[in-house]
Amino acid sequence: MSNTAGQVIRCKDWRHDPSVFDICLNQPLIKTAVAWEAGKPLSIEEVEVAPPQAHEVRLKILFTSLCHTDVYFWEAKGQTPLFPRIFGHEAGGIVESVGPGVTDFQPGDQVLPVFTGECGDCSHCKSEESNMCDLLRINTDRGVMLTDGKSRFSIKGKPVYHFVGTSTFSEYTVCHVGSVAKINPAAPLDKVCILSCGVSTGLGAALNVAKPKKGHSVAVFGLGAVGLAAAEGARLSGASRIIGVDLNPIRFNEAKRFGVTEFVNPKDHKKPVQEVIAEMTGGGVDRSIECTGNVQAMISAFECVHDGWGVAVLVGVPNKDDVFKTHPMNLLNERTLKGTFFGNYKPRTDLPGVVEKYMNKELEVEKFITHSVPFTEINKAFDYMLRGEGLRCIIRMGN
Amino acid sequence: MSNTAGQVIRCKDWRHDPSVFDICLNQPLIKTAVAWEAGKPLSIEEVEVAPPQAHEVRLKILFTSLCHTDVYFWEAKGQTPLFPRIFGHEAGGIVESVGPGVTDFQPGDQVLPVFTGECGDCSHCKSEESNMCDLLRINTDRGVMLTDGKSRFSIKGKPVYHFVGTSTFSEYTVCHVGSVAKINPAAPLDKVCILSCGVSTGLGAALNVAKPKKGHSVAVFGLGAVGLAAAEGARLSGASRIIGVDLNPIRFNEAKRFGVTEFVNPKDHKKPVQEVIAEMTGGGVDRSIECTGNVQAMISAFECVHDGWGVAVLVGVPNKDDVFKTHPMNLLNERTLKGTFFGNYKPRTDLPGVVEKYMNKELEVEKFITHSVPFTEINKAFDYMLRGEGLRCIIRMGN
Repeated sequence: MSNTAGQVIRCKDWRHDPSVFDICLNQPLIKTAVAWEAGKPLSIEEVEVAPPQAHEVRLKILFTSLCHTDVYFWEAKGQTPLFPRIFGHEAGGIVESVGPGVTDFQPGDQVLPVFTGECGDCSHCKSEESNMCDLLRINTDRGVMLTDGKSRFSIKGKPVYHFVGTSTFSEYTVCHVGSVAKINPAAPLDKVCILSCGVSTGLGAALNVAKPKKGHSVAVFGLGAVGLAAAEGARLSGASRIIGVDLNPIRFNEAKRFGVTEFVNPKDHKKPVQEVIAEMTGGGVDRSIECTGNVQAMISAFECVHDGWGVAVLVGVPNKDDVFKTHPMNLLNERTLKGTFFGNYKPRTDLPGVVEKYMNKELEVEKFITHSVPFTEINKAFDYMLRGEGLRCIIRMGN
Repeated sequence: MSNTAGQVIRCKDWRHDPSVFDICLNQPLIKTAVAWEAGKPLSIEEVEVAPPQAHEVRLKILFTSLCHTDVYFWEAKGQTPLFPRIFGHEAGGIVESVGPGVTDFQPGDQVLPVFTGECGDCSHCKSEESNMCDLLRINTDRGVMLTDGKSRFSIKGKPVYHFVGTSTFSEYTVCHVGSVAKINPAAPLDKVCILSCGVSTGLGAALNVAKPKKGHSVAVFGLGAVGLAAAEGARLSGASRIIGVDLNPIRFNEAKRFGVTEFVNPKDHKKPVQEVIAEMTGGGVDRSIECTGNVQAMISAFECVHDGWGVAVLVGVPNKDDVFKTHPMNLLNERTLKGTFFGNYKPRTDLPGVVEKYMNKELEVEKFITHSVPFTEINKAFDYMLRGEGLRCIIRMGN
């Protein structure tokens, strides 16, 4: 146990352990980036972080990155707004202290917090096929901890809401143990932090769900970080043709580094993109992976797979009122349509293995990281994403 | 070679071989049941059957049965009408003669003609995952043989159209070799003839596509022969709950013999049937199999499967203008939707094994057979089906 265990931490009286917390030297007060209201720049504030309760751990976040889902809920267009809130869910850190009864973790463990959890006991956790834990499945409407329905964050005595059980835009945060994956202590957190959401989502969609075979053709819709991770997964699987589909032609050059061999811009064609792809591939691709969340792209991704054996995998999150439509004969002709959530990875069980893929140099993570900013400049990460610039921006908590 | 090989057969000069054709004694002219026009009773006529050409075999049909697809195209509501035509595709017979270059078959072989074929050479035949042969896939618009674009049937010198390459409502017919499965010569054709379409379609949908695991719950939509065969497949797989869904409550008693444990009539409920099933099963069934072709039933069958691992399999053939609609989140929550054609069985490769399941007493075929009529009373089989009576009516060609 560290000497801050069981205490609300604000850093004032904090005696750090240099072997663990060396990055946080000379920062007397804990900083967080609060979204006070929808769509307004985050504000760096001093925050109090309550001690972890039963089944919880308190983490020191060292690196976090910005994902579209943060922006989506920060913009709060179409969802229930919940403010003030601390966003952030793609991150790496170390355990500072653990709540009562927690035996799986100890202070100093290197971890990735995850926006969806694995309780280990529910029907989903017990199923080999599902990672959608009943207890800890992503819940974007909940802004408090499960244990007691309260927030662990407060600013000047007023509670601030959590986000998807992670709230990593904060030097310290509290998570349910089921939402934290313990990883190789040698893994560099400034790299592997991005494996806690987007990259694993795309990679797993290819490796665990689409499962292309050697020599297969694969279409990837949307060449952001998730789509490029799906392309990377297709490449690792031995796919011989990887067709990238995006409305932004600038993305193609970048995409080549992820194994994309051909590029289709739907804007360049009068006929539907699924027909273009079917013509390019003698009837359709073997696999397709949809990473935009646009329902028209989902339909195209489904209809562009080959009859007889084609599998389309949906990854991108649709809008609330979207309707997926297709002629049922497209299904009857032996096409498969399936969705995936977090690449079908069970967060605690499987994420350590994804980190090992990086450590073994099977998986290149660096090429996803196009920007890096200190925590105080977190709003720049939002600007990059809103302008569609780059893939992942690492936010350095310590400097 | 039999002594009729290479000749147009009408039976007048025919010297039968009693070891093979004993059932056909005292029938000097070949009879066929012609549909002269849409929806009108079939008419028994004398027909000339031309000899098989390259890659073709001429079959003596001993038993055939009536399937909904025959009725659907005979009614010709919504499809291009093609008359006069000889329907029929669920049947068993023996090879009478083979065309030039045919080496896989010889006269006397016991076979099941199949409405869809397996050329062995196309990308589908070479794929482990598909049975949708490019060359011989079902084609309901074609009424002639592939080899020369001509019919092998004529009545008083005028050609009569084929149906799906089988036209088994005839004492003799000609098929492409790729559409004929050679089976165990000891198998009783009056039973196993029904394995050449409907029963294998439902059985394969369960065993090859839905693949329920021991202890799983399975919903089957539509309790006709195909749906009951799907239930039978689910039972053979060890499913512990098999929920039958049908608008006709009379079907439940019959369905119990096929392993159906519970029955849901959508008419008995105010809420959508997918919600009823989800409530019965703690969130949804593990697998569902849709065997009606009604697009609303397809949507219900998809939406009633459990998130995380549920698999819905579509079997029933939809109408031309149907649209399958669902909220894409139903997919994103890790449900799988797939269609199957002929239960994913490759007709020549896999049907002999289905017959063996019957021979080994794994699969009970008798319970699907509820009626039997002589060929001259074939229209009674149509009446039974139009009234929704029973499951399969065997049409005895010889008596």
